[in-house]
This record gives sequence, C-alpha cells and structure tokens, in this order.
Amino acid sequence: MQPIRVGLLGVGTVGAGVFNVLARNGDEIERRSGRRLEVVQVSRRDVAAAHAVVGAQVSVTADPFEVVNNPNIDVVVELIGGYTLAKDLVLQAIANGKHVVTANKALLAVHGSEIFEAARQRSVVVAFEAAVAGGIPIIKTLREGMSANRVDWLAGIINGTTNFILSEMRSKGLSFAEVLKQAQALGYAEADPTFDIEGVDAAHKLSLMSAIAFGVQVQFDKAHIEGITKLQTADIRYAEQLGYRIKLLGITKRVEAGVELRVHPTLVPSEHLLANVEGPMNAVVAHGDAVGTVLSYGQGAGGEPTASAVVADMVDLARVIDADAAHRVPVLGFQPASLSDLPVLAMAQVVTSYYLRMRVKDQAGVLAQLTSILAEHNISIDAMLQREAAAVGGEESHQTDLIVLTHDTQEGQMDQAIARMEALDAVLAPITRIRKEGLA
Amino acid sequence: MQPIRVGLLGVGTVGAGVFNVLARNGDEIERRSGRRLEVVQVSRRDVAAAHAVVGAQVSVTADPFEVVNNPNIDVVVELIGGYTLAKDLVLQAIANGKHVVTANKALLAVHGSEIFEAARQRSVVVAFEAAVAGGIPIIKTLREGMSANRVDWLAGIINGTTNFILSEMRSKGLSFAEVLKQAQALGYAEADPTFDIEGVDAAHKLSLMSAIAFGVQVQFDKAHIEGITKLQTADIRYAEQLGYRIKLLGITKRVEAGVELRVHPTLVPSEHLLANVEGPMNAVVAHGDAVGTVLSYGQGAGGEPTASAVVADMVDLARVIDADAAHRVPVLGFQPASLSDLPVLAMAQVVTSYYLRMRVKDQAGVLAQLTSILAEHNISIDAMLQREAAAVGGEESHQTDLIVLTHDTQEGQMDQAIARMEALDAVLAPITRIRKEGLA
Repeated sequence: MQPIRVGLLGVGTVGAGVFNVLARNGDEIERRSGRRLEVVQVSRRDVAAAHAVVGAQVSVTADPFEVVNNPNIDVVVELIGGYTLAKDLVLQAIANGKHVVTANKALLAVHGSEIFEAARQRSVVVAFEAAVAGGIPIIKTLREGMSANRVDWLAGIINGTTNFILSEMRSKGLSFAEVLKQAQALGYAEADPTFDIEGVDAAHKLSLMSAIAFGVQVQFDKAHIEGITKLQTADIRYAEQLGYRIKLLGITKRVEAGVELRVHPTLVPSEHLLANVEGPMNAVVAHGDAVGTVLSYGQGAGGEPTASAVVADMVDLARVIDADAAHRVPVLGFQPASLSDLPVLAMAQVVTSYYLRMRVKDQAGVLAQLTSILAEHNISIDAMLQREAAAVGGEESHQTDLIVLTHDTQEGQMDQAIARMEALDAVLAPITRIRKEGLA
Repeated sequence: MQPIRVGLLGVGTVGAGVFNVLARNGDEIERRSGRRLEVVQVSRRDVAAAHAVVGAQVSVTADPFEVVNNPNIDVVVELIGGYTLAKDLVLQAIANGKHVVTANKALLAVHGSEIFEAARQRSVVVAFEAAVAGGIPIIKTLREGMSANRVDWLAGIINGTTNFILSEMRSKGLSFAEVLKQAQALGYAEADPTFDIEGVDAAHKLSLMSAIAFGVQVQFDKAHIEGITKLQTADIRYAEQLGYRIKLLGITKRVEAGVELRVHPTLVPSEHLLANVEGPMNAVVAHGDAVGTVLSYGQGAGGEPTASAVVADMVDLARVIDADAAHRVPVLGFQPASLSDLPVLAMAQVVTSYYLRMRVKDQAGVLAQLTSILAEHNISIDAMLQREAAAVGGEESHQTDLIVLTHDTQEGQMDQAIARMEALDAVLAPITRIRKEGLA
C-alpha cells in the first residue's frame, strides 16, 4: 500500500519527537497500520535547525503554507501552537482536503467549533489526542472506550507544571513563589508561566474533554478558571492534617440544569489515587453510569509522550483514510447533528463542598456567630480544625485559624455566607475558600 | 440508518448488564454511533428467567444455535463462558458471517488463533475488550492508544478476587484460607475459586494483552502461572517492612531473546500506584518507548462494567460494519501477516529480582554460607532483614527468619543457588521465593 504522506508544521520538541518516533518505530508502526507514515516535508523558520533534526533527505521550508498547500501531502501535523497562524494553517489544510493532527489545545479550545465544522464539510479528520494529557490516550478512552456510558463527570490533573509545583510545596513546605522559581530552573515551568499557573492551559484541555464526555460544543469561553498563585502553604498543611491533598483539577460534570466546567485548586482525599499523582505527571478520572470510575495516568507533556499521541492519531487515520466519513469516529465522539446545547452553569449554581480557613479573634462567641451564619445558609459542617493562636501569630496574638470542611452546598449560598462572615468584627482577614471533591 | 441487530448468548449478570445498558443509554449511544443497537434475540436455558430480564418483546430461545443461525442478526455477543459450547457457537456465528463480541478470555486464550483466523477469512470482527479487566478500556489503550510505541512490557492486577484477598490479608493480618472464606461469602470469590486463586484467569487475560502489546500469537499454553494459595501473612508483613506490597501480577516483557509471560505474586514498591490498587479493583501499567509508563485503572468485573466494554465494542463495530475489513483495526492491532514468532522464554531465562525468606539456625557462620552461595551465582544483595528468633518461634527456638532482597538476576541462577542453600544443614525449611519488580 502507498505510504501516508505527512507534513509537519513545527520541528520543536514535539515535532522532533514525532519525526524520531516515526523513524525509530517505522517498522513496528507499519506492522500495525499496514502502511508507512512518511514525513515528506516539514516547516520551521530556522531551516538549518530543521534539517539537523530530519536530515538532508526531507524537504524543509521556512513557509508553513508551502506544507499545507503541498499536493503531495495527505496529513498535516500542526505543532506550531497559538491561535492565529495555526488557525489559518489548519483551515487552509482542511480547505485543501488534507487531514489534520494537532497538539494545539489552545487553538481547539477557542476555535474548535469552527475548525470541526470546516473539517466535516470537507470530509477530513481533525485528530487531537496529543492536545490533552500528552501521551495518555484519554481522548480515545472517553470517546470510544466509554461510549456505552452516560458520562456523569470527569476530573483531571491535566497540567504538569502546576502539579509539580503543588507536589513540591507540599513535600518541602516551600511557598508558591519559591517553587515556581525552581520549576523554571528545571524546565517544568516556562519563563512566562501565566497560562499554566493561572489554570488557562488546564481549562483549554478540560473544555475539550467536556465536549467529548457529554456531546456538547467546546465551551472554553464559559469555563470558570482559578489558578494556584494564591495558594498558601498553610492551607496545604491544614488540608493534610484533615486527610486531604490540594490539586489543581479540571472538573466537568453533567447535572440536570447543565454542565459544570471549572478549573480550581481542590481538596482530594489523601488515599485517592488522584491525590497520589505527584510531580509533573497527569491523570484523569472519569465516571460513567455503567463502568463506574476509570482512571488514566501517564506523562502529560514532553516530546516523545506527546509524539506518541500524535502518531497514534496518524495510525488511526491511516486505517480509515480511504473510507468514507461515516466509517470514522466523529471528532467529538458524537454525531455532529447530535450535539446537545446544555448550558454551562454559572459558579453560583455549582454544588460542591468546601474548605474554609478563617483568621478570627480568639474570643468567646466567635464560633457561634460563624456557625449560625453557615446554618442560616443551610451549609452543614463536616469537620473542623482550630489552630492555637500561638501557632499562627506568636504567643500573645489573640488570633486563631479556624478551618471548616463543609458538606455539599450551592456555591451561591456559600458566596453569601462568606460575605456575611467577612463582615463580622471577629473575622480578621478575607476567608480562604478551596473547593473539595470526593471523586467517588 | 438501520439498527445493528444483536443476539445475546447468555443472559446472566453480564448479559443482563448489556441489555440494561443498551435500554437505558440507547439514546446516548445512538448520539454517538449514529445508529441503534437493538437486541433482537437472546438465548438462555431458563427461558422464563431470560424473559424476566429482557421483557416479553425480545425473542428468547433455549437453543443458542438458533441465535447464531438467525439470519436477522448482525452481531452475536457471546457471554456463555467456557471452551466447548462457546467455541462451537462462535465459530458457527463467524461461518454465518456474523460479527462476534465476547467477554470470554478462557476461550480466546486457548482457541484465539483459530477463532481469529476464521474471522479473518470471513471478514468479520471478533472484539473482546470485555475479556480483559472488565470495563477498563485496556485493549483499546494497548492496541490503538499506544500504536506509536514499541511496547517493552506491561504488568497488571487483572484478577479482582485475588487482589481482594491480598488486600484483606495485608490490612487485617489474616491467613489466605480465612480471607478466601470471607471473599466467597461476599461474592468476590466463586464456590470453586481455582481459576482465580491459582492465577489461571489472570494468565488468560495476560496472554491476550501480550499478543496485542507485541504482535505475537496468543500463547497461554506457554505462560508460567503461580497463584496466591501458598502466600504467608509473614511474607506480606516482611515485604511491608521492606517497603513493598505483594500483588498477584500478570507480567509480560519483550526482550531480545523472546517474550516473558508470567503470572505470580510480586513485590511492588509501596509508593507505586499499582501497590495502592486495593480490593477487587484492576489496573494495568504498560511501558512504551515513546510514551513511557501509562496506567489504566477501574472495575475489572461486574455486570455493568463488563457490559460497558461489550457495548463499546459494538459501537466501534457499528461504525465500520459496512466498511471493508482493511478499514478496521486488526484483531490484535497488528496486521495478521505481521505477527512475529518471538518465543515465550522459559522461566530459567527470565531476569528479575527476588525476595527470599529463609528459616535458618540462629548460629554463627550461617549468613556467610548463604551469602557466598549467592555470590557464586552472581546474585547481589539489595537489602536484608533478620527477625529475632523470639519473633518467629518463641524465646528458645534458636531459629531466625532471614529475608533477602536481591538485585536483578537470571532465574536459572536463582534456582541453582536456592537448591544449594536448601541443602545446607543450617537451612531448616524450603526457601520462600517471591519475585520483585520495580515497574518503572
């Protein structure tokens, strides 16, 4: 059979990974797919640097449009990243009838609906296993492995940078700023880490998984996003004393009124497998009504793990490239006409439980004031921890940290309760609120 | 589009699960597959009992051959189990041009090659996600999700009964026999638990995964199989003191000389995720040269989890049922003509590390005797633990337990060293040997 002719846009870490995996495992891959995957052209601004990776035989161009317009290319692999140029290239490739494999979560989170519709009209595939959780086949697991289920929810550690930072903060007792500096030195965090530490990257990935889990449009613009920059080591320590670890989770749930779509630091029970995912590793837990809970774990980033997902998409494609579109898995796993328009819920409608840390005056009656406000908003208390004043502010501080774990409540009720508690004289600082999930 | 017409052989726990999942999630599944999956006929000896599950509308027969010969059925779902009748039914269904979905690991482990070849000749699909690890999509992960990789090895907790027993032995300090009785009472172990506790069920599943991971024939007959019946609580306790838990693992590795294929109790580092898979849960870790380590975790048995896998296979099938066979994923993920004939290695050729427990006389010179035998076989020691005589046999026993962890060595060398050590006067009982894996 004729080889599948591949054009690579971008020959950075992942692009080099794709090239090297195809070169090293070409025979093994052909044993599977029945045909070769052959990189015929790559683009990179620095042509000499690209040749250093792909050798002299492969055509290199500084102009990525040359690749997407090359009539001898069947599949374009987009590894440039970003929204602007990548979007033009992907749409041009689709217009030219080429299949697209991409690792670009930002592009698909923001412009996915437009790109998927263009691909549908041209009967080409857009595949993006590599866009979520690197080498872990989580797109395939959700889209095909769980296809018998009504998926209820999923939650994932889908950003390695923030998970590394949280692991280090916990195990070494260091502050966010200290660990961020280390992570940058080690290459786990970028020079501008905003997208990672503010939760934006996780929200990109989460909105793709949510669309596949529930058969809804990609709705990144409606996601609630909180990063880890404000997290205190004190909260990590208190959480641990209460039997929890704090992880930055992307969580999406389907309830009757709509879809929850949220990224925020989350207390997870210490014995839960997700709590034990440490360092830069990724993991996703998904719950289906038939299968129960399924967890997938692995490397969420890196050249070869990401290349593993890119090439797996190519092997899938190689099998159906000559088949008509009806024989292919739809891009979100649901038939395009069957996507539901379930709305994304406002955070005030979300039901979850909470960790609250309150710096309060160490005097009689404070606890009664606080607990009666909670009770008036129907918020019931699951556990409480009070730290002696001496522990937080010196022997004579007359302050104490009061930590409360609540049962499930609606976030709107919690907002109101917190506003009322913060207005009390006895409450000395803004209340720290971290959401808590059982994930069972 | 026309529905896919399904015939169910067997309406027990899993059969009822399949029927109920299709009934409950029929709309959600149709949103995905674009066509309905409709159970048109089921077989069960007790026809009334079957009607109680599937209602009055669905045709029920006591004769399973009526289903496989029914011209109005596209897909036969075999849930009868066993080797004999199930084999005849599956081959008859294939001969009739029907696709087959099965959860029957025993059948495929023993007769897989014959069945797969028959299916290839008739251009029908044989799908068996449900045969390994219940609802966890591990077949899909290995076959499609890791298709870019040269898979080096995989290891799994793939039998819930034995994992439940080992979890209970460790957490409650009970003996194998005591826990087995409990497991039977709770329904985690069958009245005749032989296939589970002797490791046969795990070996069935392992040989299927091995074939898919490496592109070799299913070679259950060459697997090395040890169960957990001889495991002592003392070994579980000593392992824990050394930082390990004991799990019944199915392990398959590809090395230059061939394939390792073995099921046995195994020491796993306590902090490894696999060590923390407790109770009846299943998990598989696979290592690919590009992706690194990937872990999949979930419920390995039960009506609805297994049905989840059965129905996922049907959804996959629905998409390609009208496509020619070249557009389908080959049954083992490799093109049939590309299967390799790598031999299964004899255990004497396997390289691994070991936990040894030796009951020895508490006298000078014993340790020197033992360690020099190990050294003469090039076996180096990683860690050692000596338990005072008082702890094992009362104050005046003059016996001691000596526990040794070794570095990697060839099993043939270990066999010889153990034979020589057991011949020593100072060694008072057969040496307990448990293999140990790092799984990194």
